[in-house]
Amino acid sequence: MIVRDYNTAKATRTVGAKGWDSTRLLLKEDGMGFSFHITTIHEGAELNLHYTNHLECVYCISGEGSIEDKATGEVHAIHPGIMYALDKHDDHILRGKTEMVMACTFNPPLTGREVHREDGSYALEADPL
Amino acid sequence: MIVRDYNTAKATRTVGAKGWDSTRLLLKEDGMGFSFHITTIHEGAELNLHYTNHLECVYCISGEGSIEDKATGEVHAIHPGIMYALDKHDDHILRGKTEMVMACTFNPPLTGREVHREDGSYALEADPL
Repeated sequence: MIVRDYNTAKATRTVGAKGWDSTRLLLKEDGMGFSFHITTIHEGAELNLHYTNHLECVYCISGEGSIEDKATGEVHAIHPGIMYALDKHDDHILRGKTEMVMACTFNPPLTGREVHREDGSYALEADPL
Repeated sequence: MIVRDYNTAKATRTVGAKGWDSTRLLLKEDGMGFSFHITTIHEGAELNLHYTNHLECVYCISGEGSIEDKATGEVHAIHPGIMYALDKHDDHILRGKTEMVMACTFNPPLTGREVHREDGSYALEADPL
């Protein structure tokens, strides 16, 4: 059994860049077959994201914002209780009206060494980073 | 892209039994490779659980309680921010001191037809329910 506390893991397991940070509570090395992160989208952030190599589920714990599906132009409001799943590796824009705290699950699991690439994706482990 | 709202899904996607209920926001049919649920542990509940066929990650959004690892006897406090991962199919007792709201990810994904069996596990799809 693995037990981790986001409140303390924030100091040691967090990565981030402009507009977001993410605390990796579970990574590939934990052997769960998925990774699990608590991600904060900063107030006013606008992030172009396209996880061409991963499926992601996001659940909004707090805050307000939106997600734009670039394939259809649809904009879905995000507030506590909203879950979105990028089951088609959906190209999207995430906007934080306020700071948003999200629980994120990735399949395949992130290794913790990924960086966001120019196209908004994370590379797979075998890809150059 | 799948978008679901826990606040409305509660009425249509919730299962439960004594001491708990769970809203299945993603199931196997959604094709994510895991399932994702918002589960409420009721105040005072004491649940013997042993997912012999599944790995589970649980993140506490609200409430207070504990998890007892039956293999070691260790009791870990649960409060908002605590994540536990049953990476060894750990036999455990979950106790709700107050009502607890948890974000749960299962691998393999639940189909939505599982029931808790006598031994505290969920059967796999091919198993008799």
